[in-house]
Amino acid sequence: LSSQFESLDYELCENKIFKEEELKKNPCSLTKQNATRWVVVFFIGVCTALIACTIDICVVEMTKIKYGFLKKYIEKCVKENCLYIPYLQWLGISCGFAFLASVLVTYGEPVAAGSGIPLVKCYLNGINVHRLHRLKTLFVKAAGVTCSVLGGLAVGKEGPMVHSGAAVAAGLSQGKSTSLGFDFGILKEFRCDQEKRDFVTGGAAAGVAAAFGAPIGGVLFSLEEGSSFWNQNITWRIFFCSMVSAFTLNVVLSTYHGQLGMLAYDGLLNFGKFPDIPFALLELPIFISMGIIGGLAGALFNQLNYHISVFRRRFILSRWAKVLEVIIVCSVTVSIGFVMIYFVNDCKPLGAKDAVEFPIQMFCEDGQFNAVAAMWLQTPEASVRALFHDQPGTHNPLSVGMFFITYFFLSCWTYGLSISSGIFIPALLSGAAWGRLVGLGLYRITQGAAWADPGKYALIGAASQLGGIARVTLSLAVILIETTGNLSLGLGLMLTLLTAKLVGDCFNSGIYDMNVQLAGLPMLPWSSPPMCHGTQAQTIMSKPVVVLKEVERVSTVISVLEDTRHQGFPVIFEDRFSGSQAKQTSFGALRGLILRSQLKILLKEKPFCSSPTGSTRSPIPLETFRMYYPRYPAFEDIHFTEEERASYLDLRPYLNPTPYTVPKHASLHRTFQLFRALGLRHLIVTDDNNEVVGMITRKTLARYR
Amino acid sequence: LSSQFESLDYELCENKIFKEEELKKNPCSLTKQNATRWVVVFFIGVCTALIACTIDICVVEMTKIKYGFLKKYIEKCVKENCLYIPYLQWLGISCGFAFLASVLVTYGEPVAAGSGIPLVKCYLNGINVHRLHRLKTLFVKAAGVTCSVLGGLAVGKEGPMVHSGAAVAAGLSQGKSTSLGFDFGILKEFRCDQEKRDFVTGGAAAGVAAAFGAPIGGVLFSLEEGSSFWNQNITWRIFFCSMVSAFTLNVVLSTYHGQLGMLAYDGLLNFGKFPDIPFALLELPIFISMGIIGGLAGALFNQLNYHISVFRRRFILSRWAKVLEVIIVCSVTVSIGFVMIYFVNDCKPLGAKDAVEFPIQMFCEDGQFNAVAAMWLQTPEASVRALFHDQPGTHNPLSVGMFFITYFFLSCWTYGLSISSGIFIPALLSGAAWGRLVGLGLYRITQGAAWADPGKYALIGAASQLGGIARVTLSLAVILIETTGNLSLGLGLMLTLLTAKLVGDCFNSGIYDMNVQLAGLPMLPWSSPPMCHGTQAQTIMSKPVVVLKEVERVSTVISVLEDTRHQGFPVIFEDRFSGSQAKQTSFGALRGLILRSQLKILLKEKPFCSSPTGSTRSPIPLETFRMYYPRYPAFEDIHFTEEERASYLDLRPYLNPTPYTVPKHASLHRTFQLFRALGLRHLIVTDDNNEVVGMITRKTLARYR
Ligand SMILES: Nc1ncnc2c1ncn2[C@@H]1O[C@H](COP(=O)(O)OP(=O)(O)OP(=O)(O)O)[C@@H](O)[C@H]1O
Ligand SMILES: Nc1ncnc2c1ncn2[C@@H]1O[C@H](COP(=O)(O)OP(=O)(O)OP(=O)(O)O)[C@@H](O)[C@H]1O
Ligand SMILES: [Mg+2]
Ligand SMILES: [Mg+2]
Repeated sequence: LSSQFESLDYELCENKIFKEEELKKNPCSLTKQNATRWVVVFFIGVCTALIACTIDICVVEMTKIKYGFLKKYIEKCVKENCLYIPYLQWLGISCGFAFLASVLVTYGEPVAAGSGIPLVKCYLNGINVHRLHRLKTLFVKAAGVTCSVLGGLAVGKEGPMVHSGAAVAAGLSQGKSTSLGFDFGILKEFRCDQEKRDFVTGGAAAGVAAAFGAPIGGVLFSLEEGSSFWNQNITWRIFFCSMVSAFTLNVVLSTYHGQLGMLAYDGLLNFGKFPDIPFALLELPIFISMGIIGGLAGALFNQLNYHISVFRRRFILSRWAKVLEVIIVCSVTVSIGFVMIYFVNDCKPLGAKDAVEFPIQMFCEDGQFNAVAAMWLQTPEASVRALFHDQPGTHNPLSVGMFFITYFFLSCWTYGLSISSGIFIPALLSGAAWGRLVGLGLYRITQGAAWADPGKYALIGAASQLGGIARVTLSLAVILIETTGNLSLGLGLMLTLLTAKLVGDCFNSGIYDMNVQLAGLPMLPWSSPPMCHGTQAQTIMSKPVVVLKEVERVSTVISVLEDTRHQGFPVIFEDRFSGSQAKQTSFGALRGLILRSQLKILLKEKPFCSSPTGSTRSPIPLETFRMYYPRYPAFEDIHFTEEERASYLDLRPYLNPTPYTVPKHASLHRTFQLFRALGLRHLIVTDDNNEVVGMITRKTLARYR
Repeated sequence: LSSQFESLDYELCENKIFKEEELKKNPCSLTKQNATRWVVVFFIGVCTALIACTIDICVVEMTKIKYGFLKKYIEKCVKENCLYIPYLQWLGISCGFAFLASVLVTYGEPVAAGSGIPLVKCYLNGINVHRLHRLKTLFVKAAGVTCSVLGGLAVGKEGPMVHSGAAVAAGLSQGKSTSLGFDFGILKEFRCDQEKRDFVTGGAAAGVAAAFGAPIGGVLFSLEEGSSFWNQNITWRIFFCSMVSAFTLNVVLSTYHGQLGMLAYDGLLNFGKFPDIPFALLELPIFISMGIIGGLAGALFNQLNYHISVFRRRFILSRWAKVLEVIIVCSVTVSIGFVMIYFVNDCKPLGAKDAVEFPIQMFCEDGQFNAVAAMWLQTPEASVRALFHDQPGTHNPLSVGMFFITYFFLSCWTYGLSISSGIFIPALLSGAAWGRLVGLGLYRITQGAAWADPGKYALIGAASQLGGIARVTLSLAVILIETTGNLSLGLGLMLTLLTAKLVGDCFNSGIYDMNVQLAGLPMLPWSSPPMCHGTQAQTIMSKPVVVLKEVERVSTVISVLEDTRHQGFPVIFEDRFSGSQAKQTSFGALRGLILRSQLKILLKEKPFCSSPTGSTRSPIPLETFRMYYPRYPAFEDIHFTEEERASYLDLRPYLNPTPYTVPKHASLHRTFQLFRALGLRHLIVTDDNNEVVGMITRKTLARYR
């Protein structure tokens, strides 16, 4: 576990100054604050959808230009035997975009690399991932993913959209931008970790809603990680946010496609509906077998990707090396694509209703087109749609199989590069490819039975592959159901997903979890490991605990801050045992908890007093504390006179007087439950007399997986 | 608040004997237990769906017989001018069923009255509603709702199905039936409140899935009330349960309708899909206005129903009076229906594709049928479907309006009778009626614009009326979306629901909440009321606290149990202040908490010892405690010798050593959060030295709404 990550402070610090401010509030101001929340959430939904639309439209339009251009040259060169020209063109264009994508991320904002879903999940879990929600990150993510997709890499754009939603939420809800150094001076009351996280929960849901057209799935996605507690108000707001987002997207896309008012575009990831697939009980065993295949394939994928990631962490460290790797991968992708198009002569008649956008003739006869070229020369989404919905005869098993193998390894290599890239679409695409193969096989064996629809099996295969790679959680299952608009296939999908997950879990963990672990993020699991009976809070807690007295010498406070890197310090009544620090088991009677950030602000504001009995001056108002959020003064820069160092700091108005505690005999299970259910950051372990004996934090617990 | 209700014990009592048992478990037995849970959940889903199917098929088949019979006589008597005969027949048949329905509930199992949804919600909230899950209750509920629907009353059958699901889950998971006095001797490890509640959560979800064809809505419904903490394992199981239920229902209904393998029946409440309704931005204001109307109408409904309920509670007390009231309501319903059919001559041509099942000609010309008769002589579901999907010209505004008014008041009178009856369908039906009126108006004004589809407006009206009456929560919104299979109308639906809820909330609370409050059930709200800053735990806590010592005299234990009705007693280290009970503020140093049920079992088993320093005998095993669940020995029946009374009871192996506590200065807000997030029953208030100063329970908090 890396110690560089800190936690969010989800707990309300109900200290004296907070209570005073609360008492000033009247029902009217509360209503106003609540209404503001709804308005903010509305705009979060709208903006998220607009960003998603922009990305999508850019990708679609520019892909059209790119492949239209290539088609022209390929067609020409097939006749004139100069195919190396379009190859070089293709290579050039793709590598150009890939270069752009990787430079943006590598030199611009490294935190924007990858899918973003693991990081958003970590944030919702309570980890304060640095720079995750900057405007710059948002820009790099959005522009970066557009470039990666345009570069023809095996990436999806859905994960980054979820991240964008979260970033939009964090930005809008604070009414200021750190990247631009600009402060609108509004929404000041939302500048605390708790409010911000609630908004980000909505933003992530909106992102899912926009990316997958799955508003309910979005709510579940956010709640799954985020909600320590199912609060109906927050849940409604999240739901509203994702609905607004789905709706805005629908309006914009409908307008863009010239069907204003029709609202026919449910989401970006529209795989087309499966209206009336017959689905027989007898197919369930087939689904389970496919789940097993998917689980195995997914485990293989994750294992390979793990080794690649470890290799990258060890050898590819400099920035230019990262950029270079992206370019290599891009060239290999393009070359493989070209070689396959050149050598596999899979000709299909033109003019079916599921016509591809750029049918390329290559060496086929007139009136036919090269089916392999069609797969490579379009966005991955379009390929997935083709595999789901094309007529049984459209695809040649051999070329689909070859496509699967190359795409599987390419996407495995691609994921984890220093570009922003999702894994959803690549997983679905390779799954759809082998699923379609299974479907084609069944179709032949049964001689065209109605239920053996290759499209349906492509869907099941896609689900199974996704389940094997990402070990989908409940929310991903719902997202898949919503995306395909198919509730009646729901049980089949779920069965496949569950099997794939179970099989995959025998070998390794899901790709997102793997990312989290590799990055050393202290994400808390759902519950304590099953075999830890007998472990008590006192066996896992840290001690000795660094504590402060209620009225503490300024010099002591300074030295504590300098000597330790802890973020929270229990405050005790008196230092009864100051003599025998080493052997003692209790560190004093608990009176509260104070955070490092509060101490920093206090040292900066200097409300010191000269007597050790405490201050009579009126305390610093909460307003001042809020002003500093989220960047606290670096106390190294503050200068203290000798007199100031010798004076005292009265912590009583500022400390949290009722921090959560756990008795030292409590089981690990109970400690976990308390921690997760309440979204804690610090849990103080006390003995029978309410004296501090230890400290439990996220990092203490995250070790127990 | 009625004091007759007790709480569930969701907290694990991690005492010495529990820990010993835990240590004996190995990974294998844990896996086995987990697998058993999944198997049980599977059967819960299947059984719930089968019960729902049975109810549905019974209703459909017998309605066919009933109305087919009536149709024959009406047709005959119109010619022969003897219409009083079919009227009397109709009256007779309906009142017969209504009589049966009310006798079953009134004399059989009064807890089966009403919708069941409020009671299930209360159970999930943590209230131990007595007899709620008996086999007898299940039977009465299922048979009762069939009879009420057949009696032609303005009731739905969806709420009762949810209740059935919960009862099935509670029954199956315990492996025994109290009503039958039968014990299979299996699943003994699930015999505790915590496990049982987790299964009931799944059962309720399965009930929703079967009733509304809304598996995701079912999961949300259960989690909304039930989950104190979003645990992924439990959530997966709930989801699996509701999926299995929806799937089983689909299989059975497909088979029943002769389409084996087609799986075309998503749920019982199939209102038909709305495939491609155009939906323009400009309609949103109309939706909001309709939401306002729905909110007002709903508030009126609830207010009327409240007064009726109060009247009933005061004057209709004896059983026969309850039965009589049901028969009166039934007669009035039939009579109004008959009068409307007789006097309103709304003739429509026969033979449209949305043909009604029993077109009755009455005084219409040949080739026509009476549209009013069609509305009354079918199940409410069929009427809703007709209002949603019939062509614009099918319904006459006047007759729809009259139907709305009569049905609105009838359903208001009916809800709360001593029969099992849901409110979902009646609310949807009256809403659909006025919604269709709005739609027809718009259709005329715009001269048949494509967007002014009366069916769509009927749906919006139905949603709005339901929102106004039930103040739908998130889960109900999702259920509605799933039922109509329409995600693109989602935002419109949600906007309407939200408006209706907000408007309604200005006047009174939702009908389910009203039921809960009238019954005095101590249901905990979502969070503390907004204007309670400054309220601290110590201002709301109960004191003096009845406490026990770690090793207590048997006579004291007996007298404490006799003198108080508390269910939990803090255990203290020593009774330091025994002299001045009245004035003291602290009741001793906290060492644990013991439940009344545990004390009863201990008194029955008599592990007494003679010295006040404690027992050296090995404690009673957990097995014995589990054996008594859920019916504990009545200690009044136990005989104690003088010697026994003078001996001591060592509570230390049995008490919960780490009960949840809250400091006395903690705010009400924090207390609420702790209570709801962890699903507590007892929360001990302690002072700075961990001494007991007060007690907070569900009933203490439920007062703060
Ligand atoms: N005041 C303290 N005294 C002694 N040990 C502490 C104290 N605070 C934290 N620790 C221990 O230090 C280790 C690292 O702490 P950790 O970084 O998780 O907490 P933190 O820095 O206080 O909060 P954050 O999660 O924001 O980083 C943990 O094992 C924790 O138990
Ligand atoms: N041991 C106790 N000593 C003093 N007061 C108590 C004690 N236990 C409960 N009370 C108080 O008695 C009142 C009624 O208690 P309540 O019925 O809610 O709790 P209970 O009977 O212990 O548990 P249950 O919720 O199962 O009924 C509450 O105000 C509660 O605070
Ligand atoms: Mg730290
Ligand atoms: Mg009680």
